[in-house]
Amino acid sequence: MSLRSEILDQPQVLSRLLSTHRERVLGVARAISRRDFEFAFLAARGTSDNAGLYAKYLWGIRNALPVALAAPSMFSVYQSPPRLQRALVVAISQSGQSPDIIAVVQEGRRQGAVTLAVTNDSGSPLALSAEFVIDTDTGTEKSVAATKTYTAQLTAIALLSAGMEDRAERLEELQRLPELVGEALRLDNQIESVVARYRDMKQCVVLGRGFNYATAHEWSLKLKELSYVAAAPYSAADFRHGPLAILEKGFPVLAVVPDGAVLADMFDMLQGVSASFGADLTVISNVKELLQVATTPLRIASDTPEWLSPIVAIVPAQLFCYHLALAKGIDVEHPRGLQKVTRTW
Amino acid sequence: MSLRSEILDQPQVLSRLLSTHRERVLGVARAISRRDFEFAFLAARGTSDNAGLYAKYLWGIRNALPVALAAPSMFSVYQSPPRLQRALVVAISQSGQSPDIIAVVQEGRRQGAVTLAVTNDSGSPLALSAEFVIDTDTGTEKSVAATKTYTAQLTAIALLSAGMEDRAERLEELQRLPELVGEALRLDNQIESVVARYRDMKQCVVLGRGFNYATAHEWSLKLKELSYVAAAPYSAADFRHGPLAILEKGFPVLAVVPDGAVLADMFDMLQGVSASFGADLTVISNVKELLQVATTPLRIASDTPEWLSPIVAIVPAQLFCYHLALAKGIDVEHPRGLQKVTRTW
Repeated sequence: MSLRSEILDQPQVLSRLLSTHRERVLGVARAISRRDFEFAFLAARGTSDNAGLYAKYLWGIRNALPVALAAPSMFSVYQSPPRLQRALVVAISQSGQSPDIIAVVQEGRRQGAVTLAVTNDSGSPLALSAEFVIDTDTGTEKSVAATKTYTAQLTAIALLSAGMEDRAERLEELQRLPELVGEALRLDNQIESVVARYRDMKQCVVLGRGFNYATAHEWSLKLKELSYVAAAPYSAADFRHGPLAILEKGFPVLAVVPDGAVLADMFDMLQGVSASFGADLTVISNVKELLQVATTPLRIASDTPEWLSPIVAIVPAQLFCYHLALAKGIDVEHPRGLQKVTRTW
Repeated sequence: MSLRSEILDQPQVLSRLLSTHRERVLGVARAISRRDFEFAFLAARGTSDNAGLYAKYLWGIRNALPVALAAPSMFSVYQSPPRLQRALVVAISQSGQSPDIIAVVQEGRRQGAVTLAVTNDSGSPLALSAEFVIDTDTGTEKSVAATKTYTAQLTAIALLSAGMEDRAERLEELQRLPELVGEALRLDNQIESVVARYRDMKQCVVLGRGFNYATAHEWSLKLKELSYVAAAPYSAADFRHGPLAILEKGFPVLAVVPDGAVLADMFDMLQGVSASFGADLTVISNVKELLQVATTPLRIASDTPEWLSPIVAIVPAQLFCYHLALAKGIDVEHPRGLQKVTRTW
């Protein structure tokens, strides 16, 4: 399968996760809910780490669960792991192969923590290390740049949240995901036709906040991996605390701002960077007023629930990076310097 | 006081913290140690957030304390705070004024958590909200770009760690900080003479790992604030998982690699990016072999203890950004778009 077909396959992948695997994931959520822990301790790298950012916000806001993102080097390089007896230790890894991520789960288990692996390979060393396993079951992801495994990881995280919250309404909203993602894929032609103006972009910032802080990070990572743009992700609040200084006329600002709690703050920020600094805005949103201030507006479905918007909003971002890479003559199946399975210590 | 005098003042600032305030900080450490919590929940923005990264590694590795970095928007924008009954809630803020950071401490207190504020204004709303307060007492920091308050925050974090660990050896190492920082300041002339070659740098990556992941972030932030360079910080491990693709011949790679546990991995990475990609290396280190592979080697004291190296290694980075800004004709006292006190929600 090519990168393009993996991007286009996402409605089917999510549909399978929300049918075949739904009850198993909800079963894991129920089993975990009965256990005793005070916080989640989450280990991941690269794209999976961006999925972890989504878990940090979603589980924090919807499940009142504080999430600490692990520094795997504490376990591997420093060999001084923290106390995890009262933790839910979660590892997210497409391949389930990276030694530093496996080390976190093994240590959690040794200390008696509840451990959970979210992986695309249920036979991987990571899956074998954890007490609970969620198989994202996307089929093999061949492309170096992860796309369908990312949206599948996010969907698994959302299912777990809904299962822990145990509200029927949430599960109903989840079932709409394949349709919403399918609608986002219809931006393909529009995106193909607009990327030419970004061909010479060397750098940019990507803004998102709350649930979509993860989307800003993942869009940024894909820009680097596929189209060699030095993209830097920020929350709108962090951006005001310093990095704002790099803006100048025409500086590319990409933003992900679906309707929801962070809209007012993000709108204010984006109007400011456009009016005061003359920044060039590319916006993924479902809010008309916001799309109107953008040079390149990318519209997602107006009825996308905010908590699920990261799973929808990343799709135009993936297409954007894919078409930009093609426009720049980059071989998207072989981005320089990268391998599919990265083993880090 | 100017930015330059604030940078040069750091040995005196740290000396005061390690004499006048030492017993008070150790008293806070002892009082906290007697309390009951499972993890730290740390809220900060901008430079203070980078100090938080140091706490995450140091308290994790030396005090076995898992540290979750707060997403303040959960408290302010989403108004859905997580459970904090079993947390040590820590807020770090120079001004003690930002509403979203204050909200985290107030919520922690409401839930019955242990709360601690590290601030430069002991009369600030933040200080008044917390049960325990550490005053970094650097004197007024006038410059928009934080320098002496950053090293003071790190020193307070290190003192707290030593106090919780209660080992005399650690306290003795801490007393050497003013001298080590003073020695780093002697790089001033060398740095002034090398920055000309970076005048046209638009972007770069800054690598650090473990304790100095914080230094990579803070160097990167200062580059953006003061010299308008789009700098992106990475741990060596995360860099391998994707962003590596942006490297090309002559791409500027800045790295902070003092002797210690992460040396082998970082050395391997830097030799690779230099040999395979032809990246241009600027290295802050005390390891001869590593300084030799750098185009611009910046040497800190050979006997700098690894756990304290972030407090020493940031000093040449500050000087680098200061001189680079001057070389580019930037008014370092008034970087565009920034204010000293940033209020975010």
